[in-house]
Amino acid sequence: MCESNCNNNLCAVLHGKDDIRMEGREVPKPKPNQLLIKIHTVGICGTDVHYWKHAKIGEFTVTKPMVLGHESSGTVAAVGSDVKGFSIGDRVALEPGVACRVCMACKTGKYNVCDDVRFFANPPYDGSLARYVVHDADFCFRLPDNVTMEEGSMAEPLSVGVHACRRAEVSIAQKILILGAGPIGLVNMVCAKAMGASQVIMTDICDSRLELAKKLGADRTLNVNGMSASAASEAIIVSLGQRPDAHHDQCYLVTYCTELILKNNRSIRKTCVILHKSAANYLNRIKFYVVKRGGILVLVGLGGHHAQLFYTEAAMREIDIRGAFRYVNCFPTAIELISSGKVDLSGFTRAHYKLEESVEAFQRSLKGDVVKVFIHCDDATE
Amino acid sequence: MCESNCNNNLCAVLHGKDDIRMEGREVPKPKPNQLLIKIHTVGICGTDVHYWKHAKIGEFTVTKPMVLGHESSGTVAAVGSDVKGFSIGDRVALEPGVACRVCMACKTGKYNVCDDVRFFANPPYDGSLARYVVHDADFCFRLPDNVTMEEGSMAEPLSVGVHACRRAEVSIAQKILILGAGPIGLVNMVCAKAMGASQVIMTDICDSRLELAKKLGADRTLNVNGMSASAASEAIIVSLGQRPDAHHDQCYLVTYCTELILKNNRSIRKTCVILHKSAANYLNRIKFYVVKRGGILVLVGLGGHHAQLFYTEAAMREIDIRGAFRYVNCFPTAIELISSGKVDLSGFTRAHYKLEESVEAFQRSLKGDVVKVFIHCDDATE
Amino acid sequence: MCESNCNNNLCAVLHGKDDIRMEGREVPKPKPNQLLIKIHTVGICGTDVHYWKHAKIGEFTVTKPMVLGHESSGTVAAVGSDVKGFSIGDRVALEPGVACRVCMACKTGKYNVCDDVRFFANPPYDGSLARYVVHDADFCFRLPDNVTMEEGSMAEPLSVGVHACRRAEVSIAQKILILGAGPIGLVNMVCAKAMGASQVIMTDICDSRLELAKKLGADRTLNVNGMSASAASEAIIVSLGQRPDAHHDQCYLVTYCTELILKNNRSIRKTCVILHKSAANYLNRIKFYVVKRGGILVLVGLGGHHAQLFYTEAAMREIDIRGAFRYVNCFPTAIELISSGKVDLSGFTRAHYKLEESVEAFQRSLKGDVVKVFIHCDDATE
Amino acid sequence: MCESNCNNNLCAVLHGKDDIRMEGREVPKPKPNQLLIKIHTVGICGTDVHYWKHAKIGEFTVTKPMVLGHESSGTVAAVGSDVKGFSIGDRVALEPGVACRVCMACKTGKYNVCDDVRFFANPPYDGSLARYVVHDADFCFRLPDNVTMEEGSMAEPLSVGVHACRRAEVSIAQKILILGAGPIGLVNMVCAKAMGASQVIMTDICDSRLELAKKLGADRTLNVNGMSASAASEAIIVSLGQRPDAHHDQCYLVTYCTELILKNNRSIRKTCVILHKSAANYLNRIKFYVVKRGGILVLVGLGGHHAQLFYTEAAMREIDIRGAFRYVNCFPTAIELISSGKVDLSGFTRAHYKLEESVEAFQRSLKGDVVKVFIHCDDATE
Repeated sequence: MCESNCNNNLCAVLHGKDDIRMEGREVPKPKPNQLLIKIHTVGICGTDVHYWKHAKIGEFTVTKPMVLGHESSGTVAAVGSDVKGFSIGDRVALEPGVACRVCMACKTGKYNVCDDVRFFANPPYDGSLARYVVHDADFCFRLPDNVTMEEGSMAEPLSVGVHACRRAEVSIAQKILILGAGPIGLVNMVCAKAMGASQVIMTDICDSRLELAKKLGADRTLNVNGMSASAASEAIIVSLGQRPDAHHDQCYLVTYCTELILKNNRSIRKTCVILHKSAANYLNRIKFYVVKRGGILVLVGLGGHHAQLFYTEAAMREIDIRGAFRYVNCFPTAIELISSGKVDLSGFTRAHYKLEESVEAFQRSLKGDVVKVFIHCDDATE
Repeated sequence: MCESNCNNNLCAVLHGKDDIRMEGREVPKPKPNQLLIKIHTVGICGTDVHYWKHAKIGEFTVTKPMVLGHESSGTVAAVGSDVKGFSIGDRVALEPGVACRVCMACKTGKYNVCDDVRFFANPPYDGSLARYVVHDADFCFRLPDNVTMEEGSMAEPLSVGVHACRRAEVSIAQKILILGAGPIGLVNMVCAKAMGASQVIMTDICDSRLELAKKLGADRTLNVNGMSASAASEAIIVSLGQRPDAHHDQCYLVTYCTELILKNNRSIRKTCVILHKSAANYLNRIKFYVVKRGGILVLVGLGGHHAQLFYTEAAMREIDIRGAFRYVNCFPTAIELISSGKVDLSGFTRAHYKLEESVEAFQRSLKGDVVKVFIHCDDATE
Repeated sequence: MCESNCNNNLCAVLHGKDDIRMEGREVPKPKPNQLLIKIHTVGICGTDVHYWKHAKIGEFTVTKPMVLGHESSGTVAAVGSDVKGFSIGDRVALEPGVACRVCMACKTGKYNVCDDVRFFANPPYDGSLARYVVHDADFCFRLPDNVTMEEGSMAEPLSVGVHACRRAEVSIAQKILILGAGPIGLVNMVCAKAMGASQVIMTDICDSRLELAKKLGADRTLNVNGMSASAASEAIIVSLGQRPDAHHDQCYLVTYCTELILKNNRSIRKTCVILHKSAANYLNRIKFYVVKRGGILVLVGLGGHHAQLFYTEAAMREIDIRGAFRYVNCFPTAIELISSGKVDLSGFTRAHYKLEESVEAFQRSLKGDVVKVFIHCDDATE
Repeated sequence: MCESNCNNNLCAVLHGKDDIRMEGREVPKPKPNQLLIKIHTVGICGTDVHYWKHAKIGEFTVTKPMVLGHESSGTVAAVGSDVKGFSIGDRVALEPGVACRVCMACKTGKYNVCDDVRFFANPPYDGSLARYVVHDADFCFRLPDNVTMEEGSMAEPLSVGVHACRRAEVSIAQKILILGAGPIGLVNMVCAKAMGASQVIMTDICDSRLELAKKLGADRTLNVNGMSASAASEAIIVSLGQRPDAHHDQCYLVTYCTELILKNNRSIRKTCVILHKSAANYLNRIKFYVVKRGGILVLVGLGGHHAQLFYTEAAMREIDIRGAFRYVNCFPTAIELISSGKVDLSGFTRAHYKLEESVEAFQRSLKGDVVKVFIHCDDATE
């Protein structure tokens, strides 16, 4: 396949801080259990931007050139010899982390905490912001006809919401508090609504984010900018309508999405870092007055910083504190949510670039004026 | 209160087969932990009709006059001395079964299987089809302003759906099969949809029921009248779109609601009894081809007959078979589902009678041309 | 390795009913993810005997020569190129069913219901009753020094007990009823005791089995031979000491192990088939009086017959009916149970044969005078 | 009963810091749902000692004279008119917290987080260190003949262990780390062993505690006095035998029992306070290297201080952090554990005092040379 066009695979390669280069690489060959995917659409995530600006996240450092991108959809271009159930031309979403399948985490259905996950654009593994990638077939998911390629690439962030809401055991008639109205806060909100939550309240310090959240389905929003923890706490409770003499408790679950608060333009980010500290502070002082006894607090998208919890109160009220790391078995669910109309992503604001314009796309993503920036990698039209 | 009008409490009393009498009884006085409720609306359930026509259900026999009715809403007319959180005039739904609160079932949160439940209109306990009843305050639930008294009385059958769907662990993006499109099948369907099921398929042998089911939200329906088990099985699978080569399984849960199939006029009931037998037959032969490995089969509303399961296949596929008996902690959820608009009961067809017209109301219920017959017990207008 | 001794791999091959032949086959070569295992010990299971006598079980038919055996331990003789964590000479137990690792069942941690399991001595797959086998490394488990090769081979039936007890959610201070005191009943009993059950009562119709059960740790035994269902039911309850006026319920779980009741010599088997029918009968009439409300009934080792359950009573008491099929993630647990001394298998009666004496070993197994017949495949001593 | 001896009920009453007075009070009369209990034995708990020395714990302050004591057993002396299942002379253990039974926490089986629990010797409620108390019958549990009164009073701390181990989902073949070898650490250890844990490792800074822990059943112990967090972490892993190349993970659960570390004599307490700080420090730095991915960290017995967790690492490894507050539905289990011999409390070191010697008993408890100090309240012999 590659004989006459060995460098035909255009890729957006990160060479270091602020150094994305468009390079032609060889089109890879699928192993027996893999598919060759002609990438169609890649969404830019906050972690992509963070690698671009810092060449590292926490302990992960970019030490050699690395292709970026991990929110991707495309078309099957070749099928490995052992693969069943896929044909050339099938439209698919790509789950970016390929687990080892043989460790105890994988065997027990928790492959997201597998020690040997190869994850797109997590050093040292290349990402999917390219014309072509190969990917293990069991981490590719066919898209129904009524799901677009952009929606297919959004199956990735939506899966983060599905996993966090599952960890939070969101169910019908619950009242949910989500701290932070960035992209991850939003996917948590739409998932919580799909799972039957009757009231989702979101907090942030940016009015424009909260307005979008409301438009996308949040029942209530609260700008906590400048509020003391106790004032914010009281405002949340008043907004949810809990009465102190309530005959029966109501269920408050908190999904904490600070990481995404950070994803914005610089000035806001700076504010957000401050917010972040006060958010941690809010969390420490608010959460245990807000989360009901026996309730659940889920931490999602926490990044590299080391936030602290005063857990004594949590222990005495038996509030479970649960992390949510990436997702496990969520892609089929996310795709079905989109296909069935249970989740409507059309209102997520967006911008569009070509693969060749990747640097511009990253700059736009940094600007933060839209929820999602898409890069279209296919040189043809869909 | 009762001094001048000791017989002011009009009640619909079952004295035996086909023998409902309207009688004036004394207005009861609430104990310290009770409320006196001025009943507003009572819905008629299939079990009420069954007691009326047979004076018994299974081992429960009407041996002394018994007030009928257990789907009820009303207004607080007096508050027991120890009760907190209620005031005269509060509008409430009544959870009909008062558990003992001290046995191991109650202490572990399974009060629906408490051995000492006192349940409205379950011999020897009187029901709520009356002007006034007293009821333990912790089994009364305040109605939000946007929930009508009729909806309040429907919190009872809706709670049956909530409990069954919880037992079935219904969640987002699942495909659910419900056998039987009677009232209980319908409340299961609307709950399953509220919980995020992407496809609910319902079967019955009556086209009119299936048409209503579709109107109320069922994604697909199938009239299995005259179908062989294997044909019905195949039709269900085709309808749900499961492909034999599917890359990933899809989740089929079966909620089995035969009891309600029986609730209809006589000719249909006769057919339905036959259907019922073949339904059991279908169940035995269909379910294990339809329910996915590791899936869940919930039995709800089974009545007195002794259906049989061939469980070997279930065991080998690790399909859990779970009963759902009444409900536990479902009233607050049901009311919130209605209030938040997650469940819309307005399309459930209905008819209306006054308390004095109870016999006519029961005759109408037997006719089976509407999903729910309501009796309005309040002599004033709402 | 095999150049000079291509037929060096002696195997016990089933060619049809009553037709086991000892044949030399080629020593297989491990794939990159496999180990070559020099088999040391193989225990004979009831299914092996059943294939020998019938050449089929249910829908599985022996249509071409098949090596028998699936309860096995051995020593690593060669390591595939991709395998980590194993060295030549490591002593291992072999989990006989290799799942596909890529389907939804595998991905969600339920690989025992994977549709593509390749299981030793389940047609068309060869078993492990041989000098050498190759096996995927992730289904091989290293044995601690204090676990013998015989115990290693018993990790397989013990895993059946671990899985069934997990499905039954056995925990401390529970009272457990096990119907059937064959090998599978026994492994269920020792697991239930290890999990903290305070009283395990076992029933059977053979006194000798019950005596052994008691010796191995059963707290109580009951010979139900000739007993009516109600008499057996009452005897069980009396034996467990449940008083009708008990202030708090006690937990009864039933693990149903009839299949193993069948494994015995012919005359007993005939009786046992009868027992089996009456056991099903007992089960149908006893279980719902014995299993507490909200309790769990687990079906394990059910074989090919089609037993029936009257499930109405189960549904009304919310008794969960769960199958237990093989095991999932139980080998590490089983080995740790043996190694830590939490389970002591030394009292399981046994007999020993050489690989060359396989036919005699099968005849001995059929005789049923010991719980486990071992075949030693290593031509050297351990 | 009380006519001639109205002040016959000797009680140990706390009037303020360091001020326990022995006072005669009236023998109380049981309400219809209560029992009058002639107290036999009361164990002293760390919280009793803390109230004695500080007259407050956290937000709970002793503002009026309060009877101390909450680990108690006794004999039924009178039975309320509505009580079933108890007779005069029955020997019982008393669960000290009586919940409201009507709130959502109680109805859902989590009565330990009920807002209206009346708990012995938790201000403003009197305790059980008296000749007689009345107690709601559903919180009294009959003792089998083979359980002594001392063991009956120990059902209370043992229930703390049962609840924490249930929250930790301890099961067979697991490896458990318990930080702190005080009384609560010890009951957690014996429960974890009863639940089938194969290895329980305990840490403390006092050799004598660790020696006792080992004698009572701990598999391994580690004195972490002066150790750095990383050294302690490594030592724990080495001791548990986890090998970095382990083919399958092993399960580490941490039950954190620092509160009890504080209960000792003054000099040790001072050290322990320091230890406590470093223990929190250890916890923060050790736990996430020690607890396996997807594992559980349970916090039990945390007292009033505000420890902090760095939860980012926990979130990324999906380690659940769960509080364990008191216990719920654990008394029947604790009593059955003792009665069945699954837990042996005979090795818990102890001292004995008469009710009249309560002050001496408290002084002895403060000295900390025995695990449990018992006060015998019955003026007759058992």
